[in-house]
Amino acid sequence: MNDNAPVTVLGLGAMGTALAGAFLDAGHPVTVWNRTAGRAADLVARGATEAATAAEAVSASPLVVVCLLNDDTVREVLDGAVGSLAGRTVVNLTNGTPRQAREAADRAAGHGVGYVDGGIMAVPPMIGTPGSLVLYSGSPEGFHAHERTLGALGRAMYLGEDAGLAALYDIALLSAMYGMFGGFFHALALTGSEKVPATEFAPLVAPWLTAMMAAFPGMAEAVDSGDHSAAASNLAMQATAYVNLLDASTDQGVSTELVEPMRALLDQGVAAGLGAGDVSSLVDLLRTAPAGTAGA
Amino acid sequence: MNDNAPVTVLGLGAMGTALAGAFLDAGHPVTVWNRTAGRAADLVARGATEAATAAEAVSASPLVVVCLLNDDTVREVLDGAVGSLAGRTVVNLTNGTPRQAREAADRAAGHGVGYVDGGIMAVPPMIGTPGSLVLYSGSPEGFHAHERTLGALGRAMYLGEDAGLAALYDIALLSAMYGMFGGFFHALALTGSEKVPATEFAPLVAPWLTAMMAAFPGMAEAVDSGDHSAAASNLAMQATAYVNLLDASTDQGVSTELVEPMRALLDQGVAAGLGAGDVSSLVDLLRTAPAGTAGA
Repeated sequence: MNDNAPVTVLGLGAMGTALAGAFLDAGHPVTVWNRTAGRAADLVARGATEAATAAEAVSASPLVVVCLLNDDTVREVLDGAVGSLAGRTVVNLTNGTPRQAREAADRAAGHGVGYVDGGIMAVPPMIGTPGSLVLYSGSPEGFHAHERTLGALGRAMYLGEDAGLAALYDIALLSAMYGMFGGFFHALALTGSEKVPATEFAPLVAPWLTAMMAAFPGMAEAVDSGDHSAAASNLAMQATAYVNLLDASTDQGVSTELVEPMRALLDQGVAAGLGAGDVSSLVDLLRTAPAGTAGA
Repeated sequence: MNDNAPVTVLGLGAMGTALAGAFLDAGHPVTVWNRTAGRAADLVARGATEAATAAEAVSASPLVVVCLLNDDTVREVLDGAVGSLAGRTVVNLTNGTPRQAREAADRAAGHGVGYVDGGIMAVPPMIGTPGSLVLYSGSPEGFHAHERTLGALGRAMYLGEDAGLAALYDIALLSAMYGMFGGFFHALALTGSEKVPATEFAPLVAPWLTAMMAAFPGMAEAVDSGDHSAAASNLAMQATAYVNLLDASTDQGVSTELVEPMRALLDQGVAAGLGAGDVSSLVDLLRTAPAGTAGA
């Protein structure tokens, strides 16, 4: 795909550089800016234009993609370029929270700027490949006007008008990943306690977890319907068996810090009378406020 | 496969019943026993013989498969049948810890009984299907003498002579599963806080986790070599970004109980000077005793 819509990229860390490179590869005129100099040389050699200031960079394109260190930096840089921003679309791919995204959208609206927030579900080397997924939410006009251009980064998924949704999905997926990694680390510590090489045990984990993921759709249906009665192995049985996991860890000299909270949650489920049903009922126990009342 | 080696199954809970059924399906003469009556009718209708006592059941077959409630029950039932056990092989598929397996092996050895411990990585409906994996460890003679018969239950994997290894692998795989489920539950609580249906969000999780599993082999190599220097996103960056996950959870009214321990562990990694490398270095921080010194 070749497309001549110009794009500006603010921020040339590893991710910003990968984003700018993907736009170049797709044939876009690309203007880049980074707070500290010396990051743009490779991109300039590939055809990018380096701007001296953020305001100058913003002026170069109707689409301004932002990938900075954090929300404070985004606020500072965009405030400094605010005179050039009116009428443009900002797509903010900086890591942040739903609340930060919503506040950025409010500030942008006050300046007549279209605001789209995004979450990149990929590491920099994956950008521009089919394995890269970028989640977007916020201004529907802003997203749809630039959807084709943004497609250069990977698969683009638009989640809705609430600017916080992309960050919410992003963080939710990250929490699933860290849960999985935490379980994997605990498993490697356990098998390592008997000097089983990690490279010998690890190949069993992915097929096993893949098989267990077959439970996700049924759990999701149970969460939506509130009917957790279908269970191949009920919560009470799992709470009982979980004690073996803790005892074995202690016996083997492995810290239980990553696995204790699930025990507490399973026990809480039993105490709440949920023992006969599926563990999917635990999702509701994690809610400290009714759905829809927080964050909005 | 048809095979006429007789098998005894002690314990007819959901799993024991599935095991006995799979042996019947593979053509084995099967003798069953359960502490409380009334569980064997379906199996008897399919050709099984019900024994009146555990000792009588044990006498019927050179291979005795045990699947009882817990380790205490195993000890009690086998002690009661000890006069009939000499020269036979016990394959204990009851859930338990590595320590319990090793102690059972020691007791069996004292009575001239071959002992194999096993961990079933499947739910009862999967038994006998290609998706079922059963891990074994303990007496190599006992395992190899009955390997073909045990193949009726699913794929059989022998891990070594230490009777505790099957339970260790089993519990390690379970801890990986609970980590993944915990992350999934947290993710559903987060997206549910904005009334995103779980059935709408959940289909994103499996492909995302599958993509992230690509990191497992590299992490395992790093754990074995102790060289954690290769990192697409280093530990310090992840520790910083993890704060967004906690802040967003709190903002959205979702308990941080399942995700706090990973923050503490990441922070501990940074404090230990591991910030520039991969998060795989965290595995070593979970070890409270040197490898090989515990549990043996």
